[in-house]
Amino acid sequence: MELELYFFAKGKTDADPIDKMIQGGKGANLCEMAKLGIPVPPGIIIPTKYCLEYLKWKKLPDDFFDQVLKKLHLVEQETNRVFDGNERPLLVSVRSGAPVSMPGMMDTILNLGLNEKTAIGLIKETNNERFVYDSYRRLIQMFGNVVLEIKHDKFEEILDYHKHKSGVTADVDLDTKTLLNVIADYKALIKKETNEDFIEDPKVQLKMAIEAVFRSWNNERAIIYRKIHNIPESYGTAVNIQSMVFGNMGMDSATGVCFTRNPSTGEKQLYGEFLLNAQGEDVVAGIRTPENIQNLQTVMPEAYEELVKITQTLEKHFKDMQDIEFTIERKKLYLLQTRNGKRTGRAALKIACDLVDEGVITPQQAILKVDPESLPSLMANVFDPEDLKKAKENGYFLTKGLNAGPGAASGKIVLTSEKAVELHQKGHKVLLVRLETSPDDIKGMQYSEGILTARGGMTSHAAVVARAMNKPCVVGCSDIKVMENHIEVITFDGRRLCVKEGQELSIDGTTGEVILGKLKTVHSEILRVIMGELDEKESEIARDYLRIIQWAENFKKIGVRANADTPTDAKIARLLGAKGIGLCRTEHMFFGEERLPLMQKMILSETLVERKEVLEKLKEFQIQDFIQIFKEMDGYPVTIRLLDPPLHEFLPKNFEEAELLSKKIGVSPEEIIQRAESLKEVNPMLGHRGCRLGITYPEISEMQASAILIAALECKKQGIQVYPEIMVPLVGDRKELIQQKEIIDQSAKKIFGEYQDTIDYKVGTMIEIPRAAITADKIAEVADFFSFGTNDLTQMTLGFSRDDAESFLKEYLRIGIYEKNPFATIDVEGVGELVKMALQKGKSVKPDLKCGVCGEHGGDTQSVYFFTKIGLDYVSASPYRVPISILASSIASQQK
Amino acid sequence: MELELYFFAKGKTDADPIDKMIQGGKGANLCEMAKLGIPVPPGIIIPTKYCLEYLKWKKLPDDFFDQVLKKLHLVEQETNRVFDGNERPLLVSVRSGAPVSMPGMMDTILNLGLNEKTAIGLIKETNNERFVYDSYRRLIQMFGNVVLEIKHDKFEEILDYHKHKSGVTADVDLDTKTLLNVIADYKALIKKETNEDFIEDPKVQLKMAIEAVFRSWNNERAIIYRKIHNIPESYGTAVNIQSMVFGNMGMDSATGVCFTRNPSTGEKQLYGEFLLNAQGEDVVAGIRTPENIQNLQTVMPEAYEELVKITQTLEKHFKDMQDIEFTIERKKLYLLQTRNGKRTGRAALKIACDLVDEGVITPQQAILKVDPESLPSLMANVFDPEDLKKAKENGYFLTKGLNAGPGAASGKIVLTSEKAVELHQKGHKVLLVRLETSPDDIKGMQYSEGILTARGGMTSHAAVVARAMNKPCVVGCSDIKVMENHIEVITFDGRRLCVKEGQELSIDGTTGEVILGKLKTVHSEILRVIMGELDEKESEIARDYLRIIQWAENFKKIGVRANADTPTDAKIARLLGAKGIGLCRTEHMFFGEERLPLMQKMILSETLVERKEVLEKLKEFQIQDFIQIFKEMDGYPVTIRLLDPPLHEFLPKNFEEAELLSKKIGVSPEEIIQRAESLKEVNPMLGHRGCRLGITYPEISEMQASAILIAALECKKQGIQVYPEIMVPLVGDRKELIQQKEIIDQSAKKIFGEYQDTIDYKVGTMIEIPRAAITADKIAEVADFFSFGTNDLTQMTLGFSRDDAESFLKEYLRIGIYEKNPFATIDVEGVGELVKMALQKGKSVKPDLKCGVCGEHGGDTQSVYFFTKIGLDYVSASPYRVPISILASSIASQQK
Repeated sequence: MELELYFFAKGKTDADPIDKMIQGGKGANLCEMAKLGIPVPPGIIIPTKYCLEYLKWKKLPDDFFDQVLKKLHLVEQETNRVFDGNERPLLVSVRSGAPVSMPGMMDTILNLGLNEKTAIGLIKETNNERFVYDSYRRLIQMFGNVVLEIKHDKFEEILDYHKHKSGVTADVDLDTKTLLNVIADYKALIKKETNEDFIEDPKVQLKMAIEAVFRSWNNERAIIYRKIHNIPESYGTAVNIQSMVFGNMGMDSATGVCFTRNPSTGEKQLYGEFLLNAQGEDVVAGIRTPENIQNLQTVMPEAYEELVKITQTLEKHFKDMQDIEFTIERKKLYLLQTRNGKRTGRAALKIACDLVDEGVITPQQAILKVDPESLPSLMANVFDPEDLKKAKENGYFLTKGLNAGPGAASGKIVLTSEKAVELHQKGHKVLLVRLETSPDDIKGMQYSEGILTARGGMTSHAAVVARAMNKPCVVGCSDIKVMENHIEVITFDGRRLCVKEGQELSIDGTTGEVILGKLKTVHSEILRVIMGELDEKESEIARDYLRIIQWAENFKKIGVRANADTPTDAKIARLLGAKGIGLCRTEHMFFGEERLPLMQKMILSETLVERKEVLEKLKEFQIQDFIQIFKEMDGYPVTIRLLDPPLHEFLPKNFEEAELLSKKIGVSPEEIIQRAESLKEVNPMLGHRGCRLGITYPEISEMQASAILIAALECKKQGIQVYPEIMVPLVGDRKELIQQKEIIDQSAKKIFGEYQDTIDYKVGTMIEIPRAAITADKIAEVADFFSFGTNDLTQMTLGFSRDDAESFLKEYLRIGIYEKNPFATIDVEGVGELVKMALQKGKSVKPDLKCGVCGEHGGDTQSVYFFTKIGLDYVSASPYRVPISILASSIASQQK
Repeated sequence: MELELYFFAKGKTDADPIDKMIQGGKGANLCEMAKLGIPVPPGIIIPTKYCLEYLKWKKLPDDFFDQVLKKLHLVEQETNRVFDGNERPLLVSVRSGAPVSMPGMMDTILNLGLNEKTAIGLIKETNNERFVYDSYRRLIQMFGNVVLEIKHDKFEEILDYHKHKSGVTADVDLDTKTLLNVIADYKALIKKETNEDFIEDPKVQLKMAIEAVFRSWNNERAIIYRKIHNIPESYGTAVNIQSMVFGNMGMDSATGVCFTRNPSTGEKQLYGEFLLNAQGEDVVAGIRTPENIQNLQTVMPEAYEELVKITQTLEKHFKDMQDIEFTIERKKLYLLQTRNGKRTGRAALKIACDLVDEGVITPQQAILKVDPESLPSLMANVFDPEDLKKAKENGYFLTKGLNAGPGAASGKIVLTSEKAVELHQKGHKVLLVRLETSPDDIKGMQYSEGILTARGGMTSHAAVVARAMNKPCVVGCSDIKVMENHIEVITFDGRRLCVKEGQELSIDGTTGEVILGKLKTVHSEILRVIMGELDEKESEIARDYLRIIQWAENFKKIGVRANADTPTDAKIARLLGAKGIGLCRTEHMFFGEERLPLMQKMILSETLVERKEVLEKLKEFQIQDFIQIFKEMDGYPVTIRLLDPPLHEFLPKNFEEAELLSKKIGVSPEEIIQRAESLKEVNPMLGHRGCRLGITYPEISEMQASAILIAALECKKQGIQVYPEIMVPLVGDRKELIQQKEIIDQSAKKIFGEYQDTIDYKVGTMIEIPRAAITADKIAEVADFFSFGTNDLTQMTLGFSRDDAESFLKEYLRIGIYEKNPFATIDVEGVGELVKMALQKGKSVKPDLKCGVCGEHGGDTQSVYFFTKIGLDYVSASPYRVPISILASSIASQQK
């Protein structure tokens, strides 16, 4: 049976269709380039299906390699070289190429085809003995490592030995004689490790290399990478066998990499670097400093012109900025690879907009060019540029860590969570500095402007929590040593500083910079434009941002609301594009200075009469709260959740606090402590909270419902369009909702009577208990809307307490039991399945039931993709993540 | 359209088929009796469907009452009386009769047909003016209350006034003149309350009465009753209109109730009481003392003979002991009602066996006659009869409370949970006495022999928890006052006693008796026979029990295992019929005196090496534990669960305990406290426990798996048949099970190598996290069995922490959000649905997957019905509840 193998060379290919699933990403792009007439070194492609076949049967058809060699004849003809030939030997690279890019995950072999014999032919041809033996040395090393599975270190040891012996430090300085010694030692190593001589026959080399690439699909790195990136095992990898070209054939040769646009700013200008007389490896090794790509224009103007032209062709064809590898062999330009280039958030915005303006892509396509997760950095606060400059001039710049949570922040250093709370309560802005953070630090983090840790990476506790809290955060700052009441810093320029707790420090979580002293922070350009502080004309980035978000708005299929508890949050959310509030938590409203004692008095009340009296007072506050929020959201729906947390959260935690409260409300501190104790729970997460409070204390629900409806009617009087949605939390059985709805409806009747006016309001429920999802059809009969509280739903469905899971979740993520933190990205298989089930059950009973999500997942890109796919009506995210959700839901609308 | 109405009289009925769903329970039985030739007062039945029609349309077809009256002609003919007639007027009772008995839930009207005119006719006929006006007075009162909805109290006030005025205390002593005054005042009351005169027209009375009965289907009492007893609203009630007969027509008349057998002992002998010259109401009122039914033989030998004969007919026909109401009117016997009689557990066993022996029922039918929930009382310990007798003679019997948890117990009085723990640890047996218990008392209850509370009913916290713990319990003992360190008792004979904490007290939770001092407790007769302490021949009840359980064994469709952690428990469980262990918790094994310090040392270990060292020592203990249990369960499977609880449960709770431990293991108390603190969790229920321990500390799983397999191989050497099943707890994702199974399989490989022998073992998982149920198909691929841990599954599915739910669950049960405590009886709609889903998913992947349940629901009758219905393979219950499960699963096998 004839195999399906593909050939490509400048201007021709027999691959039809060209399809990443068949030829792999790299191979397909090579075929595309060949078809476009772009000079690529000729080569052949073994498609992915043979990889799967090999892995399944552990062998390949008998005549497989004969057919591969036969196909390789086309390359021989095209290059006028002969594989295993005495003269003009054909050397090839053997590379994997999966349908989806898996950078560094699989193995590559270069210079295949060299052996003692062909080396001599190549020396004759190139007149460059050192180049040939260096190539041969590299082949043996790569083949030994990738195909024969001999540890990389063992080859490096030999190389180091010879470098040391001949007194050189760089590979490139090894002379031919030494290289021959290295080759001899390499071969001896292979003999020792495998009991076989190094394979000299290029045909056998090729066969073994192909099989090794196939096998590499299932090496551990590749498996883990696939898992993390959701790449199906069933894809397989193609093998690209491509003729070698050499950038190190003299000063008329070169090798380089470039982007078609500046990947940092998005500017339309070739960006990259090259090295004369060098191989790709040398660019990476960093021993010689590569030159700016612009200089190529001077050195090799023709090649440069051709490269520029090609990049334009490629951008138009692939409709995106390209990341290109090229080699110039004796003045002749070859394109080795092209792919869509990675870029910063800022560049992504500009490139997307520019490509639209250039007519290359449509606005709808432009949306796909911006990673939603890049937006927070663009929106985050920055230091005042003047202030920052001055600080650096004064030597206040200390060091850099990992930029784990975007934004700039200054504050007094606090080294413990307790100190953070203490200073915060005294009115200071603080910055939490820790070796690393743990769940015990959550409270301290909440009260801090930003977080700085000496240890930890981008997914450490501090990093993950800070991002969720939208706090600036720098982690892994190993130049900092955290002591008992000060920190020691080794500065970037070698100074050793001691900074005390309480002193001012500044961090920029977007850049990772740590600066001594207090700096002024200002809104990012985008935010300044959005807030009306800066004219749109003054900011290109803001203009680009606004265009992208507008397009995203047009194409997204589901609504985006915000989780906002205060008028300020509501205002920002609206400016950032939220069309309503999906979750307004009322409990935060009870923590104000005047209110907390009232709330506490209410909880400590012994009689219903007393409780109602206090509730009347609290109601007045609530009415004002709601009026403000309704005003900000004029014209949009506002979902207000009734009281949710367990009551003990409002009570004093210790005797001092109890004594303070005692003076205010006239209940003895002992009594207060006793009541607080009696309210304590073993598992507060599963305790007396949510609608369970509203059911045991109906007067609380009544007060809140009344406040909402009075506020709504007051706003209506002022001509504000109000759409209140009252949300009952923690419902597990429809009867709970019926009972609470009854209270709300009764309150409405009373208030409407008093006002001689009415207002439309909805009553719905959170779906956050597994039982609610399971019985969603029954609950839907009495609900106007569902809002999935995926935070709690995740806790209960997985049996993970968010406060405690840290202790094992790290290990779970490490060994891959969960691929992502289920509190950050929705667990599709478990929690997602429940959401889907509840959605279907709910809509089966009430097709126009409005269903949204108000957990933190509403602001996570991957989760928004899922929610869009299953058909939720809206997601609700924290204000600063609203743009992410808009963009993500718009992207999701275009996904299959 | 002609209505479907039914007529019945001795020897005839047109009801065909006779069906409770159509004629209601009472009506159907009346028709059955009529058909059997038993003398019943003739009557007609309006079937249930017209009730539903009336409630739906709020009215009845136009000619409805014409047709009812037409049908009533048959009764007139049969009785030779005329409804609304001047002579021989026909009086009828109007009664509701639903398909399922709802005692006292709906209303009855007697003597309907009486008015000023017919009263005179009846007086003429009976020559008994007082009787007629008393009947008339009763009619007005019942009609006024039931139909006109005038409060009962208002009639009673009038009656009391006249009784007082004429100086009599009993209704029966009112003379005709006074009765006429009462009637006049009753009528005035009706006029006042309704603005209408009392309806004199019997036809209108009848119409209104029928409608009132229909409406009563939806009165509040009825709705609640239906909710509690799962009776569908769609049943509706029938109306029975039956001619009145009178037991108060002189000394040749009587009324009575009787059981066909003794409902207390089951003895085959007519049991009941009667009153001469009286109406049914008088028996209930308790003003005259009724006579033993046996005496009827002397007074009215013919009627008695007939009654005995009828009871035999009825038992044969209904195949069960009957509870009968009868009236003798001028020597003529009438049967008013028959139904299956309620009985004690003891009687149920005897009656069931006797009916089989008499050839009335089959063994399979006999099973249905015994309520599984009646078994615990029969099995519970009792006081030594001699001891009890002596104590009572000495005046030590104090008082009685509610018998909330069967069994007898003696111990030193403790008034707090702490004291219970303290004395228990000093080796004393204690009895916890509280005003009422709360979740804080759980530990104290665990350490006590029994529980006594001054407050609370049969479903109070103390009662529910005690039954679950299988502890004797007396509640609601209001004669006891609990003081700070003593109790005050008002004894049954009026003495006032003060008993100090630490003094001995005894309670019998089967009878509710409270006795001063310590009494010897002995096994119940049944248990003594089962344990081989008493010959079967000596105990009728044990013989009956064993026959029933044997029959149940034969007919049940699913297996019954026990939850047992010790050899003793395993032994008892086996004697009680368990065929294997469904849950052996290993954590209890680490609390022994020698072991706890080792366990604690393991937890405090800082290195893996240190931890493994301690685990080696613990392994030796575990091996011995498992050998003992395997021996007891020779021939049956034993499911052993790997370590489940969070580690902090094993560590000292305070400094004193830490200091003690410090001396034993050489770690400083500060360090111990610190480690204990660091292990504390906000929501331990959702924390670092279950297989999460085994994954983060694989060496623990390895130790336990090794111990199980070594024990199994040691037993095999001794010729014992061992079937170990290793159960991984708290799995939420299949990868967790894969990882733990790998550890177990590796251990097995190693041990089998060392022993040069192998043993079959299974590896399965608990399904106790909602996510496990949702992804059960995926988990099933790697599991040999599922065991549903419905305790935790209930907590997570409902979001109820068992430790905390008390605070709102009471209210939830009161207002009917949940009908039963979901921790006692499975929540079918939520948790049950998940179990069903997981079962289907699991078996769809692996049809022979063994699926059982090991939560406490496995010993609850209603839950076992559900588990049997959905097709689980077995249930596992605590040892003393094994017989309940056997009987319940056998009954369930016969349910549709």
